[in-house]
Amino acid sequence: MALIVQKFGGTSVATTERIKNVAKRVARWKAQGHDIIVVPSAMSGETNRLIGLAKEISASPNPRELDVIASTGEQVTIALLAMAMQELGLKAKSYTGPQVRVLTDSTFTKARILQIDDARIRKDLASGHVVVVAGFQGADGHGNITTLGRGGSDTSAVALAAALKADECQIYTDVDGVYTTDPRVVPEARKLDTITFEEMLEMASLGSKVLQIRSVEFAGKYKVKLRVLSSFEDEGEGTLITVEEDNNMEQPIISGIAFNRDEAKVTILGVPDRPGVAYQILGPIADANCDVDMIIQNVAHDGTTDFSFTVNRSDYSKTMELLNGIATKLNARGVVGDNKTCKVSAVGVGMRSHPGVASKMFKELGAEGINIQMISTSEIKISVVIEEKYLELAVRVLHKAFGLDKPA
Amino acid sequence: MALIVQKFGGTSVATTERIKNVAKRVARWKAQGHDIIVVPSAMSGETNRLIGLAKEISASPNPRELDVIASTGEQVTIALLAMAMQELGLKAKSYTGPQVRVLTDSTFTKARILQIDDARIRKDLASGHVVVVAGFQGADGHGNITTLGRGGSDTSAVALAAALKADECQIYTDVDGVYTTDPRVVPEARKLDTITFEEMLEMASLGSKVLQIRSVEFAGKYKVKLRVLSSFEDEGEGTLITVEEDNNMEQPIISGIAFNRDEAKVTILGVPDRPGVAYQILGPIADANCDVDMIIQNVAHDGTTDFSFTVNRSDYSKTMELLNGIATKLNARGVVGDNKTCKVSAVGVGMRSHPGVASKMFKELGAEGINIQMISTSEIKISVVIEEKYLELAVRVLHKAFGLDKPA
Repeated sequence: MALIVQKFGGTSVATTERIKNVAKRVARWKAQGHDIIVVPSAMSGETNRLIGLAKEISASPNPRELDVIASTGEQVTIALLAMAMQELGLKAKSYTGPQVRVLTDSTFTKARILQIDDARIRKDLASGHVVVVAGFQGADGHGNITTLGRGGSDTSAVALAAALKADECQIYTDVDGVYTTDPRVVPEARKLDTITFEEMLEMASLGSKVLQIRSVEFAGKYKVKLRVLSSFEDEGEGTLITVEEDNNMEQPIISGIAFNRDEAKVTILGVPDRPGVAYQILGPIADANCDVDMIIQNVAHDGTTDFSFTVNRSDYSKTMELLNGIATKLNARGVVGDNKTCKVSAVGVGMRSHPGVASKMFKELGAEGINIQMISTSEIKISVVIEEKYLELAVRVLHKAFGLDKPA
Repeated sequence: MALIVQKFGGTSVATTERIKNVAKRVARWKAQGHDIIVVPSAMSGETNRLIGLAKEISASPNPRELDVIASTGEQVTIALLAMAMQELGLKAKSYTGPQVRVLTDSTFTKARILQIDDARIRKDLASGHVVVVAGFQGADGHGNITTLGRGGSDTSAVALAAALKADECQIYTDVDGVYTTDPRVVPEARKLDTITFEEMLEMASLGSKVLQIRSVEFAGKYKVKLRVLSSFEDEGEGTLITVEEDNNMEQPIISGIAFNRDEAKVTILGVPDRPGVAYQILGPIADANCDVDMIIQNVAHDGTTDFSFTVNRSDYSKTMELLNGIATKLNARGVVGDNKTCKVSAVGVGMRSHPGVASKMFKELGAEGINIQMISTSEIKISVVIEEKYLELAVRVLHKAFGLDKPA
């Protein structure tokens, strides 16, 4: 008998029929003698509908009030799900985030969980209830309703699993696990049985949007056993996300090829090479809420340097505009940009102990005539920015070159 | 400067455009220096939509979970309304029932308010905020979300006015006040400037569905000054509902003619005239949730009596079925019924000190050839059951006979 937290995303609870299916699935786990806490998202589309109403009232709605509205989406789902379980003869009880209570800071629309009071949940579990807790939401120290930001239900589930020392936190999604790369690009892509938290972080931030990145950080920090499963298939073990120590010694060098199509590249040329200049460039960009990804600055010559970074493609024109102003102020030589670029990354903890991964990657891309425009590396990841038209080719070549198409 | 509670019903906040209009109206009151607490209902149709979702899951949804869902309707409106006021430059802040907190008993779906904590509201009012509190909802002593039943937002508004000792509680509806009768039946019907709580109770329970009856009882008990106003017209003083002592000495004898079209009449004939028989008849009817209105039993002769009562027309066939079983058990002579009846009532505190109102009423109806089937009286009301086809005629005749078409 185990204590399991199960998180179901918006598509898994999109209709009352699907909610009934989720209830049946939970009932099967419960019948095996497990204690279950269920964390559902809002029915898909609902959060957007609610935020749409707010936008009809105000172009920039007050964040505190926005959270009051947005939190109702999950509040509806928890009650429907509890009812559906009761229909199957289970004892079930729903709680909103504030009711549990999930204590957060006061950063409305993207609050952080500080603490979870597990008393009510433990009591209900002890009396045989399935406990349904609204994801995505909590309350701050003053009792104000807060939400955790898009995808926050994953974080709620992991935080509950950590607070209750659950044996496993299962994230049900519309995919049946984490793949070596996107199967739509590489049909030979394989589902991974396990992946480390660090790899998952790199994969998630690079566009494999299976899990919210914060929830993975959280799970790693509190050593929560996290598993990604399909909410539409009854079979399969999904992908277990583990702390590295549990891994097979025969860990392959590279676990997956991630990519991000929405990458735009900008460069400010000939900026003075002096302390503080990076902040002078990126400060205004961050203030405008443009999400900066890769940042590259090479050695200076003649007292100036070129400073490059990538932003989400939707922020490209705003960024270019800001950058032109900054260039004038800094007396830089000019600004160039390209929004027809993409990023491809090889990710794997194995590369720590295996030199030569980068050179192999560059060799393979070069052999296909793909020019590398920017390079950025971390301990377990090598990313390159290339022309967008080469994306699929690059991913396929690297997936094959690192042997990801062969069974582990 | 006064402290005013303003309640807006579902049609007043049916769209974001109407919500903006409500915000503008509140802003005008605020500009006059008043402290304002706003209590909105859910956007019209929303509560039905939410309950519809629950019904898709379960034919008889768990009441605790139903309240979790139903309460989200008002939660959306409070935030939208607070945002709309902020757009106009007002300081505004929303609270759910549980946040305030509105403490209720644990009778889910029709909870009663026990107490309201006014600390947060007072603090916000003191700092210049318009405070928006969700109607219809609260939390019980265990923190479970509760709702007050249909129309409960009126009760929320009055309870808040009582708790905060507000100078006035304004109920904005789609009519501009309480009328001497339904203007659709009698075009000469006049808006009343004032009406007593007792009269309002009789008018409301008789089908003038301007206010939820519980809210009027509540207002009477706590001496809250209650005013009914139109949410669509900016002019007009509406109708003030007062304790009797404030009334003009020249109070007319009759304040209004109320009626109820949905009345069905049933009689069980020749029941034994012995103690407990009324309970034996009405107990099973009440257990089946049929709402009994008028009850008539005349003196017995030959050891038996006829026992009549009226029910809502939608409960007629169920009632007849039950009554046939009861008649057999009681060895009664039989059961007769008629669901083509209606009830017409003359209401007015003035009749206490003016004898002859009943005989005048009967004379007027008789002169039109309208046969009276049942009569029931209270201190300030005389009700008759007549054939449905005479309803409009009877209302018009009585409205004129008691001088209600002439200016007060």
